[in-house]
Amino acid sequence: MAVMTVADREWIERVGQVPGVELVTWDLAGPCPRADEVELVVAPYRLSTEGFEHLADLPRLRAFQLLSAGYEHAIPFVPPGVQLLNARGVHAAATAELALALTLAMQREVPWFVQGHREQRWQDKHFTPGLADRRVLVVGYGDIGRAIVRRLLPFECAVTVVASRPRAGDDLVAEVHGIDELPLLLPDHDVVVLVVPHTPRTDRLMDAAMLARMPQDALLVNVARGKVVDTEALLEATRAGRIRAALDVVDPEPLPDGHPLWSTPGVLVAPHVGGLAEGFWARAARLVRAQAEHLRAGEPFDNVVQLAR
Amino acid sequence: MAVMTVADREWIERVGQVPGVELVTWDLAGPCPRADEVELVVAPYRLSTEGFEHLADLPRLRAFQLLSAGYEHAIPFVPPGVQLLNARGVHAAATAELALALTLAMQREVPWFVQGHREQRWQDKHFTPGLADRRVLVVGYGDIGRAIVRRLLPFECAVTVVASRPRAGDDLVAEVHGIDELPLLLPDHDVVVLVVPHTPRTDRLMDAAMLARMPQDALLVNVARGKVVDTEALLEATRAGRIRAALDVVDPEPLPDGHPLWSTPGVLVAPHVGGLAEGFWARAARLVRAQAEHLRAGEPFDNVVQLAR
Repeated sequence: MAVMTVADREWIERVGQVPGVELVTWDLAGPCPRADEVELVVAPYRLSTEGFEHLADLPRLRAFQLLSAGYEHAIPFVPPGVQLLNARGVHAAATAELALALTLAMQREVPWFVQGHREQRWQDKHFTPGLADRRVLVVGYGDIGRAIVRRLLPFECAVTVVASRPRAGDDLVAEVHGIDELPLLLPDHDVVVLVVPHTPRTDRLMDAAMLARMPQDALLVNVARGKVVDTEALLEATRAGRIRAALDVVDPEPLPDGHPLWSTPGVLVAPHVGGLAEGFWARAARLVRAQAEHLRAGEPFDNVVQLAR
Repeated sequence: MAVMTVADREWIERVGQVPGVELVTWDLAGPCPRADEVELVVAPYRLSTEGFEHLADLPRLRAFQLLSAGYEHAIPFVPPGVQLLNARGVHAAATAELALALTLAMQREVPWFVQGHREQRWQDKHFTPGLADRRVLVVGYGDIGRAIVRRLLPFECAVTVVASRPRAGDDLVAEVHGIDELPLLLPDHDVVVLVVPHTPRTDRLMDAAMLARMPQDALLVNVARGKVVDTEALLEATRAGRIRAALDVVDPEPLPDGHPLWSTPGVLVAPHVGGLAEGFWARAARLVRAQAEHLRAGEPFDNVVQLAR
């Protein structure tokens, strides 16, 4: 019987019975029960590294499963001989859903009628930009980028995608543009959705020069990381009424009370809720169950982001 | 040269040149220019019947094109020998888009973070229901119902559809349920989207008994007509915290200032903006152009809702 840990009893229920594998609860606070037997640890769903130091006390540990897509924070805690696994794919549905919620909210002026509702007023109506016939540029074309494109296509909009390198198209798009083409593509798009990882190459990717290439009234949606946008430059472009923005991530984060982004017209800030949809649990449970089955079968794990040193 | 009218010069540009057809501007305010020659009149895009009485003065008139899907208001004004044409299909993209905007806004709590944004506060976050893995029931399966389903499917939710009569499925759904099955279907759905026409059969379709069959915390989205829902019963169900609602249409409409629907938690009211997206213009122009071509070719018109008496 292989032994693995999950954070709590709810997780045991979500994952269900896996023949040949025993699931033990451990939330990493305090020493691990069955420390001598555990081969796979699934982290609790939180971003802190609290308790990660206990991993060093598990002599048979083979792999450490995170429930986030990001994993850089965990690397220093992974003992020699242990693989690090992330939750790539698990968050795509929730994040793509929020990208669409933000895009549609801005293109159909949901904040305007939320405000009218709050004021208990039937407002004079007007045409809104909408999403149909708009040209949408999705910057970043991994799991989440693809999930966004799949959801955008039935809206009768034209979708262009950019990835780190140009490549052939797939079942969703005719062509994947390289990020070097971004300056040339921006002027032809009404909506720009950012979903790139934050790397030295994407740090402040959307700076003053890039923002200046977006058409008048275009919408910038950021579900990537706050630092992919130069906040000062964005403030200038939005305050001037040149472009609009819907941001699930900002720099700095959390956005301080009274920060000018809060009060700039045409800007909506959400408090980094991209992943926080209940569909997460079923998707995470499917991944953990698959890993449990790999453990039993002695197969390679999925989503290995760092091989054992 | 066949002669037809459109409301203004912008419309002439939108429709473009149609060989063999002359487009004249007429907004129905005052007598029609070229009254003796006009064979097709395209109404201005507004709901009033102002000026419709002038149609009786056009001896060669063959058809009257409305830009709304609804047409009952125009029937009394259609002279004998004239066909009435509606704009079926033209509004599907905009209305479906709003149905998704409302659904996503409620499932991801956009009004909550719009409010936090307004208060310039980075709020504590929490999981939201989301749309992935939810069971969505679309009640009404014409053009707009299909456009809604097409947009819902990539969100990884399960979609069931109901129409006036049961029939075989199509490229989007395995089966179309009859409206008689509605009471049986409601308890199994997290989101119910209403998009039926308002008829004696659908008047107050969602009454207290039907609303009582929706699961706890389920969401009712109405992009049909206000009178498809019993407002008093909805007030009771939402005030009790049993269900949530996003309404683009209400009864009465406009919703009076101070009406209790404005202040009920879990309810969002939009001021009937379903059709008001700019994508409308291109779709309407395509229809008018097609009708102009039918006029020239002597072909039957599209979207005939009432044959000439």
